[in-house]
Amino acid sequence: MSHSNYYDVTTWPVGNPSEDIGEVINSIIADIKDRQTATDENDGGKPGAVIYLPPGDYHLRTQVLIDISFLRIQGSGHGFTSSSIRFNVPKDEWAGLHELWPGGSRVIVDLPPGAAGDSTGAAFLIEREGSPRISSVEFSNFCIDGLHFIPDGSELPAENSYVNGKTGIYVASANDSFRINGMGFIYLENALTIHKADALSIHDNFIAECGSCIELRGWGQASKITDNLIGAGFKGHSIYAENHGGLLITANNIFPRGASSIHFDGVTRSSVSNNRLHSFYPGMVILAGNSSENLVATNHFLRDHEPWTPFLGVDNGRNDLFGLLRVSGNNNSVIGNHFSEVLDARGVRPTGAAPVIVRLVEGAGNFVSNNHVVALDVRAESSDSCFAAQVDALLTTGASDGLAVTTVLVESGSARNTILDSGNDAQVIADRRANAVRATPTISFEPEGAVRSGQTVEIPR
Amino acid sequence: MSHSNYYDVTTWPVGNPSEDIGEVINSIIADIKDRQTATDENDGGKPGAVIYLPPGDYHLRTQVLIDISFLRIQGSGHGFTSSSIRFNVPKDEWAGLHELWPGGSRVIVDLPPGAAGDSTGAAFLIEREGSPRISSVEFSNFCIDGLHFIPDGSELPAENSYVNGKTGIYVASANDSFRINGMGFIYLENALTIHKADALSIHDNFIAECGSCIELRGWGQASKITDNLIGAGFKGHSIYAENHGGLLITANNIFPRGASSIHFDGVTRSSVSNNRLHSFYPGMVILAGNSSENLVATNHFLRDHEPWTPFLGVDNGRNDLFGLLRVSGNNNSVIGNHFSEVLDARGVRPTGAAPVIVRLVEGAGNFVSNNHVVALDVRAESSDSCFAAQVDALLTTGASDGLAVTTVLVESGSARNTILDSGNDAQVIADRRANAVRATPTISFEPEGAVRSGQTVEIPR
Amino acid sequence: MSHSNYYDVTTWPVGNPSEDIGEVINSIIADIKDRQTATDENDGGKPGAVIYLPPGDYHLRTQVLIDISFLRIQGSGHGFTSSSIRFNVPKDEWAGLHELWPGGSRVIVDLPPGAAGDSTGAAFLIEREGSPRISSVEFSNFCIDGLHFIPDGSELPAENSYVNGKTGIYVASANDSFRINGMGFIYLENALTIHKADALSIHDNFIAECGSCIELRGWGQASKITDNLIGAGFKGHSIYAENHGGLLITANNIFPRGASSIHFDGVTRSSVSNNRLHSFYPGMVILAGNSSENLVATNHFLRDHEPWTPFLGVDNGRNDLFGLLRVSGNNNSVIGNHFSEVLDARGVRPTGAAPVIVRLVEGAGNFVSNNHVVALDVRAESSDSCFAAQVDALLTTGASDGLAVTTVLVESGSARNTILDSGNDAQVIADRRANAVRATPTISFEPEGAVRSGQTVEIPR
Repeated sequence: MSHSNYYDVTTWPVGNPSEDIGEVINSIIADIKDRQTATDENDGGKPGAVIYLPPGDYHLRTQVLIDISFLRIQGSGHGFTSSSIRFNVPKDEWAGLHELWPGGSRVIVDLPPGAAGDSTGAAFLIEREGSPRISSVEFSNFCIDGLHFIPDGSELPAENSYVNGKTGIYVASANDSFRINGMGFIYLENALTIHKADALSIHDNFIAECGSCIELRGWGQASKITDNLIGAGFKGHSIYAENHGGLLITANNIFPRGASSIHFDGVTRSSVSNNRLHSFYPGMVILAGNSSENLVATNHFLRDHEPWTPFLGVDNGRNDLFGLLRVSGNNNSVIGNHFSEVLDARGVRPTGAAPVIVRLVEGAGNFVSNNHVVALDVRAESSDSCFAAQVDALLTTGASDGLAVTTVLVESGSARNTILDSGNDAQVIADRRANAVRATPTISFEPEGAVRSGQTVEIPR
Repeated sequence: MSHSNYYDVTTWPVGNPSEDIGEVINSIIADIKDRQTATDENDGGKPGAVIYLPPGDYHLRTQVLIDISFLRIQGSGHGFTSSSIRFNVPKDEWAGLHELWPGGSRVIVDLPPGAAGDSTGAAFLIEREGSPRISSVEFSNFCIDGLHFIPDGSELPAENSYVNGKTGIYVASANDSFRINGMGFIYLENALTIHKADALSIHDNFIAECGSCIELRGWGQASKITDNLIGAGFKGHSIYAENHGGLLITANNIFPRGASSIHFDGVTRSSVSNNRLHSFYPGMVILAGNSSENLVATNHFLRDHEPWTPFLGVDNGRNDLFGLLRVSGNNNSVIGNHFSEVLDARGVRPTGAAPVIVRLVEGAGNFVSNNHVVALDVRAESSDSCFAAQVDALLTTGASDGLAVTTVLVESGSARNTILDSGNDAQVIADRRANAVRATPTISFEPEGAVRSGQTVEIPR
Repeated sequence: MSHSNYYDVTTWPVGNPSEDIGEVINSIIADIKDRQTATDENDGGKPGAVIYLPPGDYHLRTQVLIDISFLRIQGSGHGFTSSSIRFNVPKDEWAGLHELWPGGSRVIVDLPPGAAGDSTGAAFLIEREGSPRISSVEFSNFCIDGLHFIPDGSELPAENSYVNGKTGIYVASANDSFRINGMGFIYLENALTIHKADALSIHDNFIAECGSCIELRGWGQASKITDNLIGAGFKGHSIYAENHGGLLITANNIFPRGASSIHFDGVTRSSVSNNRLHSFYPGMVILAGNSSENLVATNHFLRDHEPWTPFLGVDNGRNDLFGLLRVSGNNNSVIGNHFSEVLDARGVRPTGAAPVIVRLVEGAGNFVSNNHVVALDVRAESSDSCFAAQVDALLTTGASDGLAVTTVLVESGSARNTILDSGNDAQVIADRRANAVRATPTISFEPEGAVRSGQTVEIPR
């Protein structure tokens, strides 16, 4: 059916998609280009195509190079299952497992490792110079699986290293209106690395057990990362962006481990709102490199401890004074967030310190208002069962005690900030001569004209 | 085309999909399993499959049992049309109707009724014990229609009872990375019942005219319910969750009736943010059973009266003191919500009471800040036309009067809460010795140094 | 395969889809209706169908008329590329361009121009009277391209006029549960015009370089506009709604130009939350015509200057006192938004004025709380390169100075509003006898019992 611009990798005459889907797709792209020689100034000529991957296992031994606009590659299943859990099951129990690997429309990346972060180990490389920027390339509803991690020189088992030099999708050139929807990414050192994006949409994907999940590099604007399930490894970022403006990150459920859940470097006028963020380490959201005029609002931050035995003792190297949210920049807004810091006080580092929730490091004019910090001291427990341990930890609230924290710490390098209703007077450490602070009222708060101490409260039933 | 793991129910040789699509799909699943005998420790073996339902009516007389991962069942149309409106059209007018039933890729559930909430009346049952948990089952873009409701012993017509013992999708076993996208559910007593979910995504569905819409049972974590249109019957929940942590409920438009829009039981560290919620009764959002550290933020709550004649007099049995948002738990955040309470004062129960908007029943440490309550007394009107009545009620704001309400009521069982800017001093009923309260300033509010009464305001044009 | 209710336009025997896809689709719809003569009171009869457009260029010379429910029209590519940038590239450079036109599954609208806003120039017209309302029509993942704009009588080049009398999809009749997902719209004077919508979903589309993008007309309820990339022309609206209740607009990234990003007329009990909004002119969000009880929360507003040479000097005719957010209505909530006003002070109009951010014009009872306004004076620069100019402007924050603004202006026609923490005392212009105002504390703010001036701040490392 190539005449209709619809291609099925299992019926294409060149190559064997089970053995090397890269060869098959490159051959299809060559065919599309052969048939798109027309350049029509009146109305058309190069509509692109769709390439379909039915459910199945497809080894990729040749990198796919995409240099045409309007190409959609789609499957019928994001195919996630946890490889991390399985690799930590004793091997003599594998015979009893229902299945061993991810599935769906699954591309197995069988490339030699590239250098971390470069394009050589990428399953899909999108690169085209010249004008216009390559546009409307779409990836939809299939799985990219890096298969194995490799030793990183530490004591960790190889499959827990989050290192393998493989990338799922690497966009090297300036691009416009790309879409990544409904995909699954697993066991890749980098799931998605995209340079110079304009109006990019990364929506409703499942990106987990990858070293880093989403990296927006170079510069870019007006993009969105929405409604994804994301969780990076302990060395990487769930979401990283540099020099982006107008980026919207919302409605994501970002789970551990992730050295950072979201890390901005030089990002301006962007939003991180309405996400659920969970981490085992400090430094969950970092606004670095003069990231300014961003809105961090109505997110749920939870930082608790690692509950799964294979990763006990692993962390991102930051102590509890680093801040769950750390800001180096100007005029950012931090409004209406909930922070839960749920720690075993015995494990706080430096020992005996009061952990910091929001830390303003450099800059001026930030507005931190109406944030609610909950800090609890709970006895850390762990388990060999990943799911049970996580759920158990998540649901533990009952017998916990309060934990002393600094809700907002303003360093001398950051000034003229406004801190409102984000911690009581003792919890906000800031020079009141350099910053405007209104502490959250405590029970003894009694403004004139509103004193009602001793009031008898009638409770209707 | 079974060799490519793509199945079309209309071309499968076993069974007749119009007569019993359950038999057809079970036969296809058996075929998939027959072909997945390989267990390959190196890289693969069980990729799953996709089963396609073209638009059409498919009776389901045999329950589908799914016990393999990576199965995607997809159609080409969610097919919703209102059966509730049609069943309330006089029967002698049916001949003039363009169509009588839902459509799209439509599965008609012809099973005998199960007991409410169990799996026997479920069209699709997902159940598999052992390890790993069943993963990445996906349902996409088809319709599950329960066809009729049955008498419930009350005076209501059978088709208005929301009872029939049928369930659309019932997941009995622990599961991972499931996706429910673009589906339609209608006239089922339970649309979706999912136990023990991890990283579940319920996104962009249309779930309406069902007894209960989404129920997450047992326990679970790190899931999302996003961007759905949802509306349960007067006996059930639009969304119910128990013992979940890290659940993200956002960007949903939840309309009446629903005994509750969202009901949490023992849910922790989860988010209900940025939803539009509309109900005809109190108890719109309930955090019960020690639900703690949740964020309820920037939602729009509207409670008004039932405008459609067939349901006049039906309600959920709660009076106006129950609270639109009711909290039994600790350390929750209620920030930046808008509440509209639009009632006919003559209908308030108990007669003459001031309705309660936020009610803290048990627990401690909740933070209720920056919520705006609008309360209006409007003359209730109703109509035989469902759509016209609802729109008319929604747009009625003009000639209304204020209605006295309690914006926040803190019972003696809940203490050490912080209530800021969520009602004036008279509207917040709380023991000020046990809770920190800052009332929303009223016009006479004149803090020192900010008095500008009498200021002449120059209005630029 | 018509027997299975699946149609492919490239294999349908009537008409030529490349020459006139309108004729082909109308012929398919006639076939569907011929086959749907059954009216079955028991359970079914008219399931609808799906019509598939593979990637390709399809001229539309006959308007498609849809008058059946449960019709899904789907393609395999939204196909956006910027026509606006290309039309502003000198023609002698076109030969060096990779492609000249949008692509994907692309419908090229070759109709004679209609009157602006009417249905005559619409590619797809949905119209059916009688009962029930037409339901569950779905458009998915294809491109509708209006191809050219035409002269508008001004000095602007024709292709920059945003005028051509063409509409993408026009829904004339009351409708229920429609879905518009994953579509691309480009170079249409009106992309989507939908009357009388109930439970409509407009989700995850790319709607840009159109005169107006989304218009909800007549009246309607309980709909959602979510997770779209949207940007209208300088004459139109990115989103317009009139007489809607319960509308949810969230998670959209709305970029320039757009005379307004969002314009409500008589809209009630609706939400504009969590969007990223960027404009080059005042009047970004307008609540007009007694729009009441709406929630505008946690949005990021950025207004800066036009950076692209071809549109220098073009604006929407409003001066800087108009307000970025302008409210005529009652009881609205404006909570937790970030506003960045980044202007070249030399270009402010009227000269020397303090630009207005939030302006309450008429009504009462609005609640404006916890909004953060950042105002900067930067030297405006422009460039021939659209992308580079925009990114450059977006990332410019460093050397800027503050700009004096009025953060909230309350006119005498609006009273009994509450303005909290949304500007310091000098920035909020309001009659304190008629409105409750609590200014954002400034550094000298020293409430009793909280004075800590002179405190030594110890910064943990």
